[in-house]
Amino acid sequence: MNAGIISVGNELLSGFTLDSNSTWMARKLLDFGITVDLKLTIPDDEGEITAAFKVMFDRCDIILCTGGLGPTSDDVTKDAYCKYIGAELYLDEDYLTDLQKRFERRGLTMSDSNREQAMVPDKGETIQNSLGSALGLRYQDGERRIFVMPGVPSEMKRMMEETVLPELEKLPREELHVTTIRLTGIMESALYDQVKDLVNNDVVKVAFLPGFLGVDVRLMSRDKESLLELSGQIFDRIGNYVYAEDWETLEDAVGRLLIERGLTLATAESCTGGLLGSRITNVAGSSEYFLGGIVSYSDAAKMNLLGVSQETLNQFGAVSEETAQEMAAGVRKVLQSDVGVSITGIAGPSGGTEDKPVGLVYIAVDVAGDVASRRFVFSQDRRYNKELSAQAALNMVRLSLV
Amino acid sequence: MNAGIISVGNELLSGFTLDSNSTWMARKLLDFGITVDLKLTIPDDEGEITAAFKVMFDRCDIILCTGGLGPTSDDVTKDAYCKYIGAELYLDEDYLTDLQKRFERRGLTMSDSNREQAMVPDKGETIQNSLGSALGLRYQDGERRIFVMPGVPSEMKRMMEETVLPELEKLPREELHVTTIRLTGIMESALYDQVKDLVNNDVVKVAFLPGFLGVDVRLMSRDKESLLELSGQIFDRIGNYVYAEDWETLEDAVGRLLIERGLTLATAESCTGGLLGSRITNVAGSSEYFLGGIVSYSDAAKMNLLGVSQETLNQFGAVSEETAQEMAAGVRKVLQSDVGVSITGIAGPSGGTEDKPVGLVYIAVDVAGDVASRRFVFSQDRRYNKELSAQAALNMVRLSLV
Repeated sequence: MNAGIISVGNELLSGFTLDSNSTWMARKLLDFGITVDLKLTIPDDEGEITAAFKVMFDRCDIILCTGGLGPTSDDVTKDAYCKYIGAELYLDEDYLTDLQKRFERRGLTMSDSNREQAMVPDKGETIQNSLGSALGLRYQDGERRIFVMPGVPSEMKRMMEETVLPELEKLPREELHVTTIRLTGIMESALYDQVKDLVNNDVVKVAFLPGFLGVDVRLMSRDKESLLELSGQIFDRIGNYVYAEDWETLEDAVGRLLIERGLTLATAESCTGGLLGSRITNVAGSSEYFLGGIVSYSDAAKMNLLGVSQETLNQFGAVSEETAQEMAAGVRKVLQSDVGVSITGIAGPSGGTEDKPVGLVYIAVDVAGDVASRRFVFSQDRRYNKELSAQAALNMVRLSLV
Repeated sequence: MNAGIISVGNELLSGFTLDSNSTWMARKLLDFGITVDLKLTIPDDEGEITAAFKVMFDRCDIILCTGGLGPTSDDVTKDAYCKYIGAELYLDEDYLTDLQKRFERRGLTMSDSNREQAMVPDKGETIQNSLGSALGLRYQDGERRIFVMPGVPSEMKRMMEETVLPELEKLPREELHVTTIRLTGIMESALYDQVKDLVNNDVVKVAFLPGFLGVDVRLMSRDKESLLELSGQIFDRIGNYVYAEDWETLEDAVGRLLIERGLTLATAESCTGGLLGSRITNVAGSSEYFLGGIVSYSDAAKMNLLGVSQETLNQFGAVSEETAQEMAAGVRKVLQSDVGVSITGIAGPSGGTEDKPVGLVYIAVDVAGDVASRRFVFSQDRRYNKELSAQAALNMVRLSLV
């Protein structure tokens, strides 16, 4: 079974909006073994939308279309859909009443354009929208199914989860098993060299997905046993770089390890400005082990709040292994945590010297007085340096706990 | 003049990789008045790629294609391109020597698959790649132009900037003026109500681009005068919500205001965990005004590091206006800054009560002892609550400075 995705919206073609909807939908379909063969991104234009439906209907079992269902004159997806399936619009009195009640509850008056949203096609079905006023649309012709949803991500996701996915789940299909091995601290090419004899596998499809914070190795197979076997073989060779499987993040993994060991954590950040603490607290329940942190952006803050010595700053500088170590020890003391982690570096774009270039970062982890520290040279880009530093710091905390 | 974008790659269809390349390219083309009419996302399949070239060639002046130029067996874009334009591949000895030298300099040996990358089409031209080993491809037939580039974002961007955009810049075209008015703290519908009589304009095209942190209003016109006039009229009505124009971010705007007024800033964060500090330090040169911050995730940290009183915590709780105010005043004192900003809230998903639901956030700004504070109720989602809190805090700092 295959699918096609149509994303409707001028803003998607003008480079103002990143199309994250289609990525999310594709990932959800994959869980049911449905692969997406084609994505079309088209303008808010009736002719284009109708043409896209035709292209998709000729080659896909399932068509998911988002965008262009809103109340303004730009929104023409419903008209194009009606033209394509040969439907007429009529006023759905029940939905109109429902809409009016919703507006009243919020103390708002309904406009004529909202009233338009109660016009529904006389063929196919509508999909309820529990978050907004635009109904979704659903049509089936033989085994071919079209689902039309709003472009607002929260509304689309709710419709997918409440209506579309439960329907697709019931369809007969071959099962597809997917697992993702997540690595950080190793280059894609080095990783590939270590596993290349394993990955030319007819039964399990292997993909390397490098990102700038690490590499995900994705395994897909119709046969679960083969997938588990290969996953185990890969893990045996490169397990040290693996921080998680599937959708667990590095901060999830660090949190899990801290809870397992009953330890608390505190952060001392300079060039990352709080990004490390922010990532740690993305995890629900992180207050169980994260006590807090100090963002010591100035030298004064490093001395006054973390107890870094004037001598260390004078002799080695704010960006040095010595300062990183004193920051980690200092924050552990100030926040009375078991583990302290620190980052100090030159994020750029300026501030670099020949000895200490932009991208130079020192990270230290102090576990109950036992300090490990490392020097990194990342990139020329400020945002990348921040992201890479937070990632490396989380990975050093992880490695100190395994 | 119009363009079409072809994104090649199985990973783009399986939901593992967000296609940010095509968004970036579309935005760059718009600067030259070139609009993208269609985007196709297709698998690494020779037949599909050839078919996509055909579709695009029938309707677009400029075709940009990315992905599938790498050294592995998955990568078939070059073959499809040759088939489409009727070219044969031959070994480019000069490029092979060049590649060999590059590998030697890095102390690496070249594999057979890298050697394949020196095979070039005997029609059209190649585009040099200063970051990687895959050459780009360029072909022109009359006024129609095809550019094929690697899918690695940094390599694609470098080729666009060094080769493609300079060529497109020389083409005769109508000029297009674009400006974006960026707002936060107002709903899209409320905004629309205030300006709707202005935006039905034949000369200036107006688009509302709501995001969850604010709304961008984009104006596009061939006529600069009309654009400036409309922009001024909109600003007169809703200027209070405008934090920036074009690509300036809210943290850029806050930094600009702090520098203008010669003031320094410090942050006290609870539920955002450091996100506010991280956003402030995304701005190059932020060390000029940002001294640092305290992430007081635990009550102990709020008392010991920020001087929040035990009585306040007992009487009003950690998530209260009183605590927020003491945090802002405390961080200003501890870091000796002119401005202190604090955030305390319940990010969720758990920890809410009837009185203090998930999404409840208090934010305070203390400017030289003058404290303003506000209560917000955001969403049920932890990540959204963090993002919305940091945005609202930055906006409150901005409003305290204008």
